[in-house]
Amino acid sequence: MRELKAHFLPLLVSPEKLAGAAVVVIDVLRATTTITHALAAGAREVIACLEVDEARQLAARFGKGEALLGGEREGLKIEGFDLGNSPTEFTPESVGGRTIVFSTTNGTRAMMHCEQAKTVLLGALVNRAAVCTALAGEDRIHLLCAGTRGEITREDVLFAGAAIDMLTSANPEGFELNDQAILAADAWRVALPLNQRNSPATREPALIRALRNTQGGRNLRRIGLEADIPDAARLDTFDLVPCFDPPSRRITA
Amino acid sequence: MRELKAHFLPLLVSPEKLAGAAVVVIDVLRATTTITHALAAGAREVIACLEVDEARQLAARFGKGEALLGGEREGLKIEGFDLGNSPTEFTPESVGGRTIVFSTTNGTRAMMHCEQAKTVLLGALVNRAAVCTALAGEDRIHLLCAGTRGEITREDVLFAGAAIDMLTSANPEGFELNDQAILAADAWRVALPLNQRNSPATREPALIRALRNTQGGRNLRRIGLEADIPDAARLDTFDLVPCFDPPSRRITA
Repeated sequence: MRELKAHFLPLLVSPEKLAGAAVVVIDVLRATTTITHALAAGAREVIACLEVDEARQLAARFGKGEALLGGEREGLKIEGFDLGNSPTEFTPESVGGRTIVFSTTNGTRAMMHCEQAKTVLLGALVNRAAVCTALAGEDRIHLLCAGTRGEITREDVLFAGAAIDMLTSANPEGFELNDQAILAADAWRVALPLNQRNSPATREPALIRALRNTQGGRNLRRIGLEADIPDAARLDTFDLVPCFDPPSRRITA
Repeated sequence: MRELKAHFLPLLVSPEKLAGAAVVVIDVLRATTTITHALAAGAREVIACLEVDEARQLAARFGKGEALLGGEREGLKIEGFDLGNSPTEFTPESVGGRTIVFSTTNGTRAMMHCEQAKTVLLGALVNRAAVCTALAGEDRIHLLCAGTRGEITREDVLFAGAAIDMLTSANPEGFELNDQAILAADAWRVALPLNQRNSPATREPALIRALRNTQGGRNLRRIGLEADIPDAARLDTFDLVPCFDPPSRRITA
């Protein structure tokens, strides 16, 4: 039996319990979606930073034009930064060949919770299939939802459910799920009913609707960034898995 | 808009956030189910205790035959106690007219987390409708899942979903739900699909199946107490709401 556990917040699992496991860090709205976009657009690497000042100092060490500052506070672009946290800002023109020094609180905290993991992948709906393929040989899989300021957010749980659905579809008996994994799979089943899965014409509207009614979705609507929701809802779009290296905090494809 | 929030564990909400609210404490397998059974069987009151020694000392203060010791450790009856934590042990013959000094770790901890609440009700599938009726006039409702040793348990989330389903059915727009409340409602919808709800012949098997595949259900099966699962699955059976008084730790109907 392969172990497949979901954790709805970093505080619900100790770093020791993640030791030696393949961990997927999830921050669907929007850090892991945006980082996937950035690497797909040809960014050389993303460096995750907790603090804004730290990000500024780190970016200053690069040569002119080599690094860009990206990230958000309260959902909005940070003053003096080159980029915010909207997936579509990260185009080949803006980020191609460059390092992105990226400051986002919840996603970075979740990544740094995985220092003892065997591998740390970043997951979002846009690269779900690629993440599941990368987990094919793993016997201990932990899906770690970032949440927001210590609160469980449904958008992250939905991705956990989407990954569990795909991982277990071929052999449901081959996995031992914890209760959070079962709950996540239930949430996914309700968000995207079986009869709406196979056609993009029904799948995309269902996922956009689901993401709109999440803590992150409501917040994006409140601050005028709801255009980011459809970009985060594009299931299985990028064949790319960002991988986080805890000592250097570098994220590469 | 009425506030309707679920919390999958006590550690996910501060006691201050519960101040002034109507809180429903949930420990479906089995404390809140069993306490409902005990009061329905005519027990005079239940007193919640965290520690076994504390329960023994408290029971010793009562006159001969007035109080019984009940509760569990690791699911099993405590040595020297009169009763374990199986609902059907609490019959009119065994508990009628008596005080039950009851020691159970997770349920008691969750109750003691509500010291600042306006009212603290105990909820289980067996008294779901009665709990929802009791909440009719409340504008701030918090559903607090006990979990097990700091882990989210699906059986408690399922009850939260069952309560949310009933509370919001007449007027879905009248409530503001947090993401955990939406997730709980999703879990309930998957556990008991609409087409299986109206007949006991389909409802009970579905709920038994759902409870068997929860952390508490798996544990009961492991220790040979799976007969308790159908007793906990009998939806809307008792028209009785246990009410917890934090200062005295007394639970009465």
